[in-house]
Amino acid sequence: MKILVVNGPNLNLLGHREPDIYGNTTLADLEGSLRTWYPQHEILFYQSNHEGDLVDALQRTDARGIVLNAAAYTHTSVALRDAIAAIDPPVVEVHISNVFAREDFRHHSFISPVCAGVICGFGLDSYRLAVEALLRP
Amino acid sequence: MKILVVNGPNLNLLGHREPDIYGNTTLADLEGSLRTWYPQHEILFYQSNHEGDLVDALQRTDARGIVLNAAAYTHTSVALRDAIAAIDPPVVEVHISNVFAREDFRHHSFISPVCAGVICGFGLDSYRLAVEALLRP
Amino acid sequence: MKILVVNGPNLNLLGHREPDIYGNTTLADLEGSLRTWYPQHEILFYQSNHEGDLVDALQRTDARGIVLNAAAYTHTSVALRDAIAAIDPPVVEVHISNVFAREDFRHHSFISPVCAGVICGFGLDSYRLAVEALLRP
Amino acid sequence: MKILVVNGPNLNLLGHREPDIYGNTTLADLEGSLRTWYPQHEILFYQSNHEGDLVDALQRTDARGIVLNAAAYTHTSVALRDAIAAIDPPVVEVHISNVFAREDFRHHSFISPVCAGVICGFGLDSYRLAVEALLRP
Amino acid sequence: MKILVVNGPNLNLLGHREPDIYGNTTLADLEGSLRTWYPQHEILFYQSNHEGDLVDALQRTDARGIVLNAAAYTHTSVALRDAIAAIDPPVVEVHISNVFAREDFRHHSFISPVCAGVICGFGLDSYRLAVEALLRP
Amino acid sequence: MKILVVNGPNLNLLGHREPDIYGNTTLADLEGSLRTWYPQHEILFYQSNHEGDLVDALQRTDARGIVLNAAAYTHTSVALRDAIAAIDPPVVEVHISNVFAREDFRHHSFISPVCAGVICGFGLDSYRLAVEALLRP
Amino acid sequence: MKILVVNGPNLNLLGHREPDIYGNTTLADLEGSLRTWYPQHEILFYQSNHEGDLVDALQRTDARGIVLNAAAYTHTSVALRDAIAAIDPPVVEVHISNVFAREDFRHHSFISPVCAGVICGFGLDSYRLAVEALLRP
Amino acid sequence: MKILVVNGPNLNLLGHREPDIYGNTTLADLEGSLRTWYPQHEILFYQSNHEGDLVDALQRTDARGIVLNAAAYTHTSVALRDAIAAIDPPVVEVHISNVFAREDFRHHSFISPVCAGVICGFGLDSYRLAVEALLRP
Amino acid sequence: MKILVVNGPNLNLLGHREPDIYGNTTLADLEGSLRTWYPQHEILFYQSNHEGDLVDALQRTDARGIVLNAAAYTHTSVALRDAIAAIDPPVVEVHISNVFAREDFRHHSFISPVCAGVICGFGLDSYRLAVEALLRP
Amino acid sequence: MKILVVNGPNLNLLGHREPDIYGNTTLADLEGSLRTWYPQHEILFYQSNHEGDLVDALQRTDARGIVLNAAAYTHTSVALRDAIAAIDPPVVEVHISNVFAREDFRHHSFISPVCAGVICGFGLDSYRLAVEALLRP
Amino acid sequence: MKILVVNGPNLNLLGHREPDIYGNTTLADLEGSLRTWYPQHEILFYQSNHEGDLVDALQRTDARGIVLNAAAYTHTSVALRDAIAAIDPPVVEVHISNVFAREDFRHHSFISPVCAGVICGFGLDSYRLAVEALLRP
Amino acid sequence: MKILVVNGPNLNLLGHREPDIYGNTTLADLEGSLRTWYPQHEILFYQSNHEGDLVDALQRTDARGIVLNAAAYTHTSVALRDAIAAIDPPVVEVHISNVFAREDFRHHSFISPVCAGVICGFGLDSYRLAVEALLRP
Repeated sequence: MKILVVNGPNLNLLGHREPDIYGNTTLADLEGSLRTWYPQHEILFYQSNHEGDLVDALQRTDARGIVLNAAAYTHTSVALRDAIAAIDPPVVEVHISNVFAREDFRHHSFISPVCAGVICGFGLDSYRLAVEALLRP
Repeated sequence: MKILVVNGPNLNLLGHREPDIYGNTTLADLEGSLRTWYPQHEILFYQSNHEGDLVDALQRTDARGIVLNAAAYTHTSVALRDAIAAIDPPVVEVHISNVFAREDFRHHSFISPVCAGVICGFGLDSYRLAVEALLRP
Repeated sequence: MKILVVNGPNLNLLGHREPDIYGNTTLADLEGSLRTWYPQHEILFYQSNHEGDLVDALQRTDARGIVLNAAAYTHTSVALRDAIAAIDPPVVEVHISNVFAREDFRHHSFISPVCAGVICGFGLDSYRLAVEALLRP
Repeated sequence: MKILVVNGPNLNLLGHREPDIYGNTTLADLEGSLRTWYPQHEILFYQSNHEGDLVDALQRTDARGIVLNAAAYTHTSVALRDAIAAIDPPVVEVHISNVFAREDFRHHSFISPVCAGVICGFGLDSYRLAVEALLRP
Repeated sequence: MKILVVNGPNLNLLGHREPDIYGNTTLADLEGSLRTWYPQHEILFYQSNHEGDLVDALQRTDARGIVLNAAAYTHTSVALRDAIAAIDPPVVEVHISNVFAREDFRHHSFISPVCAGVICGFGLDSYRLAVEALLRP
Repeated sequence: MKILVVNGPNLNLLGHREPDIYGNTTLADLEGSLRTWYPQHEILFYQSNHEGDLVDALQRTDARGIVLNAAAYTHTSVALRDAIAAIDPPVVEVHISNVFAREDFRHHSFISPVCAGVICGFGLDSYRLAVEALLRP
Repeated sequence: MKILVVNGPNLNLLGHREPDIYGNTTLADLEGSLRTWYPQHEILFYQSNHEGDLVDALQRTDARGIVLNAAAYTHTSVALRDAIAAIDPPVVEVHISNVFAREDFRHHSFISPVCAGVICGFGLDSYRLAVEALLRP
Repeated sequence: MKILVVNGPNLNLLGHREPDIYGNTTLADLEGSLRTWYPQHEILFYQSNHEGDLVDALQRTDARGIVLNAAAYTHTSVALRDAIAAIDPPVVEVHISNVFAREDFRHHSFISPVCAGVICGFGLDSYRLAVEALLRP
Repeated sequence: MKILVVNGPNLNLLGHREPDIYGNTTLADLEGSLRTWYPQHEILFYQSNHEGDLVDALQRTDARGIVLNAAAYTHTSVALRDAIAAIDPPVVEVHISNVFAREDFRHHSFISPVCAGVICGFGLDSYRLAVEALLRP
Repeated sequence: MKILVVNGPNLNLLGHREPDIYGNTTLADLEGSLRTWYPQHEILFYQSNHEGDLVDALQRTDARGIVLNAAAYTHTSVALRDAIAAIDPPVVEVHISNVFAREDFRHHSFISPVCAGVICGFGLDSYRLAVEALLRP
Repeated sequence: MKILVVNGPNLNLLGHREPDIYGNTTLADLEGSLRTWYPQHEILFYQSNHEGDLVDALQRTDARGIVLNAAAYTHTSVALRDAIAAIDPPVVEVHISNVFAREDFRHHSFISPVCAGVICGFGLDSYRLAVEALLRP
Repeated sequence: MKILVVNGPNLNLLGHREPDIYGNTTLADLEGSLRTWYPQHEILFYQSNHEGDLVDALQRTDARGIVLNAAAYTHTSVALRDAIAAIDPPVVEVHISNVFAREDFRHHSFISPVCAGVICGFGLDSYRLAVEALLRP
């Protein structure tokens, strides 16, 4: 099964900045781990700080499932919401931190209602759980 | 008269996705029709999923009138609003569907107050009516 | 095709008052123009300052399409909304001025969600565009 | 000077109902008193329970000043507001009771911003003070 | 006992429109049924699409009890509220559909606080129950 | 027909406390009256101050119809709402007093949207009317 | 009759600043005019920019009626409200400009509910009308 | 590792009611599956419709991790929130359906900010993913 | 004098959990202290995590005064409010911590308006002060 | 121990005005009583209607504890809040009446979050309880 | 150039209290520094805890520019706003701390819209920058 | 010291459009002036209409301080906020106009709470003052 893991703005800094919130693991580490854990599946990775790039990526993929950490765009992007609603593969919304324990504006997600489900608060394990969720029969 | 028709995020999928909301006509079909209906006018087309691209397009055009379907950015983009306010040609805001009959967050438009007018709910005819509006003496 | 053009409160003053907002054309001028432009169609006109009269007019018409400028009642009348929802012919909501560039209370319309579409901001041309919208095949 | 005194819904019951709020004087008594106090002026009276009638009355009068107790429509009528804004003579908004000491929904008036001034809380004297206000040089 | 049954805007269409919400029984059918069920009581009927007419009807009746389906005016009319508060006979507010299961703006009633009670959701039986409520000793 | 009448918190005090709001009739009196009025029907009664007990009672009953005065839980209990939505028999929401004439927080009901209908303001007669509503063919 | 006219913050600048809003008449001019118009009454004047001074003035006066232009404190002072509620003489709230036609925060008055009445929008005539209101038998 | 799976109100009906939302699997099925999938772990189950019972269960457990589907109490219970904050073992909040795609009042959770993480929308797989989350080293 | 001290949800954990907020004294310690300080009075204690139990306890007591720390139910329980309003003995609302210095949702109390008074922020001394308040002549 | 008792606006009228809310005891009576009850402590008193005076008093005192009835400034003064936060001695907020049973705007206190605790609703006993609270070891 | 530096409530404590927020420099230090840095300009200083004093100071100054740290009154004083709007010299609003990173009620300023500009977050350097801003040609 | 000056959407039009708001100086003029004024510092400039570009620019710079005029993205971009929070160099938020004197939606900034400080309203001098602020020792 082909799975696309999409990361939004500032997640390229993962492991380099604010380790108290996001930990020390880098995005490259995460990619390596996921590939190691699921060798029988094709896992693709994409990261961008550009809202439009993320929309493009969602539209163009031929993956069968998508793991999406939209980061800041979670809370501001109707464009991402519309892209998710327009495409076929299920999208699992993930967050590294527990967004509900942070600032109020992070409690609202424009994309949750059109995602298959939401997983948040488990650090990078959120991604692993999301892949698990996509792989369920 | 030179007219620029600008389409925002996910409208490149027009005719390919969610036909119950947006119909089966593609963006290319729309462009063909508009050019056919108004052979004496120069009608240019631009589509992007990137908010910044749309701002750039509005700033750079030398068209005499603009038809803008900002799609999702209608509801979230102050940058587009400021671009419309800063340029000379009148901008007509269009929507394919009746946005007021959809989710609450689609009822607010950042760009309406600085557009010349608003046309929504007539399917792709919204574009034709917008061109008509721009062509009035 | 029989089309009913309904105008709400204070629009009988059109052309006589506040020309900076509404222009100098009177309602009679508008009626004359529309009849001239669409000689092959039967266009009927009705104006009242009474909410109940407008509800009655919508209920009783046998027109195939309705152009409705509900003016002030746009923002306060659930009765008009219910009438529009109850009848068969499509109703196009029009406004002469760009209501979204005016006071906040004019940004909300009770009738938009049950109308076929909305056209606003093009002066009296809003009516012409609405007739065009109704005439599309 | 010709002055029109317009009373809105349920004020025809004045003096007959809820005397603890509105007192025992009837609308006819009020009219008699005002005519007695200002014999050198022409004071006209109009009362209706119909929003549209009140709009009509405002549009049609040739009075030089208007005293308006819009009663319940004060809080719900954009049509009256638009009528007041469209006509020339100054309109003084009056209320018999102190509306700010009553239910919350009576604290907002759609018409205050377009009236010349507001007088409330002085019983039927509110009308006399309004006439005084209109008569100032 | 004389009972007045007052129906507000668009209820004259009962049985003719939107049968999925309001059923197939007409207002005339309802009147016939109520008269048949309560032959020993005088039941009067009034319907209007005009807010002012409804206020007039409430003020002028000599009925001992009133059944009021204010329909759309339930949610927008302070004038009706004031009329109910000003008159002596008890008023029972009825609705055919369960208004609380419909759009948000139908959840608020200006008249409920001044009515004797509220009955909603039982189709035309709401009227019968309201008459029962008025007849209790 | 088997009917379950469920009373929520503090209604066990009925007739013993706050007679100006709730009258002097006790819950036992109410039960006696309902059984007397409807001898051909099986009417069961249940009262509890515990939200969970009320949920249990709704889930376990084999009644064909339910009269529910959820009292304070009307305004705070999503659990009751979900129970009503999950079970088959229709539930009629009743209130002894006119809740819309009381504090603001009593104007919102979590259960109204999933009940068959609402009856409030008629004292203990609200229960009788609710039984009537359930017995209609 | 002894009447106290109290003016709040920045009204000492009257006639010196912002003449487009407040006119060219000074507070001294106003005082002179009022004394001239009502020679048979004792009219006292007090102005302060200090909220506490205004509270003190209200508490200490032995006037039979008070005209109060609380200016900015109208919108922010609960202390003034409590003072007005605590004293015996009636207080008439006045404003020179029509506060309802200005910024939103000027639409709310903490003192209106405890004043005898409100007069606003008539320039300095607002004071004269307020005196008239206090002098009515 | 000992894990407690706590289910809140109406989840005892799982598989028996509203299969379109919750599917056909019963709570017993779920328990069987979880025990089968994790034979090396001790998994305990508790369900109650009573808020207080759920608080008691959380306080008394000696489990090392807790999976909590608080159902309706998610949205209304501060008591559960305080219990979660007071105990040591991490609590994973789960929901069968995507609560963010349902009614507005289901979008707010009192317990999310004090839970370790949130998983929703994956049907009964939400429970399996939650166990996975608890088992991570 | 017989006094009932009622403690709500999670207060059984007092002294065992979150000592930084609630201190190290247990509920048993508190009870011992109060009995020691007021040997001439009969002080009863009750704690439950169940909203319904707390309502039952309030209804059934024959105490002359009640000290109530409703904890989480302070912010969510209309049932407790109604119970307090229905019974005779005065109820003093207490909180150990200063609830106004904590999360926003703890700033609103459903029970404050029907309690005799409120004491919060003094640790377990809040209880002693509440007893003092009840004992005043 | 030196204790400062600070009273805010209009409390100098205590015992002279609105006895139904505040009782008949004057501020002087209160001072006398407190001095009598606590002869071994130095209790100082200060009252002013001026917000700035109250700020000055808080800043300048060398008392070890402060009892503050800020009255109206409770609800409007950020300056008092900042003063309380800036000084060392603990401040106990007191109110004579139960502010939560009065107008909505009295339910919010700017100073509660920075006070040591709050006591309200016990008449002048609120002051005695506050002194007790300050004297606890 | 004559410049007036006005400091509002509690700023007299600068350097003495809450050094983590405001630093250790006193107001006297600040005054010394500003006079040293700008020897060719006349810089006057004024501090008061009284809103009215600050209004007086603004009205009476003959300075050519004003630096105003209104502190707490920033968020509550319409009187200061009106004073700023009424006088000629430009006023620069300054704050020592970044008010937008503090409590919500500090995010709104009544005076910003009528000030020439706003500078906040730079400690006492905010004052120096404000003087720079006033000195620009 | 290396300083990066970042300008957001539509600021490339500076000096070319809306001179009444933004003046006649172009961005190039600004850059020239800043370089002239601070020859001993390295000042870099970046402008983009793309939110993602601005995030990239902030992430990649090795400047010691950043001056950021995020223009429209100030009010809508959580992505920029997160970037500012993630990087080391202090960011000074600047605005040419006084945003608090413009439309309501410009009063809220997502980035202010994570910036070092805010400077607005001084035209292009806002940039100079921001550089001054960054250069303070």
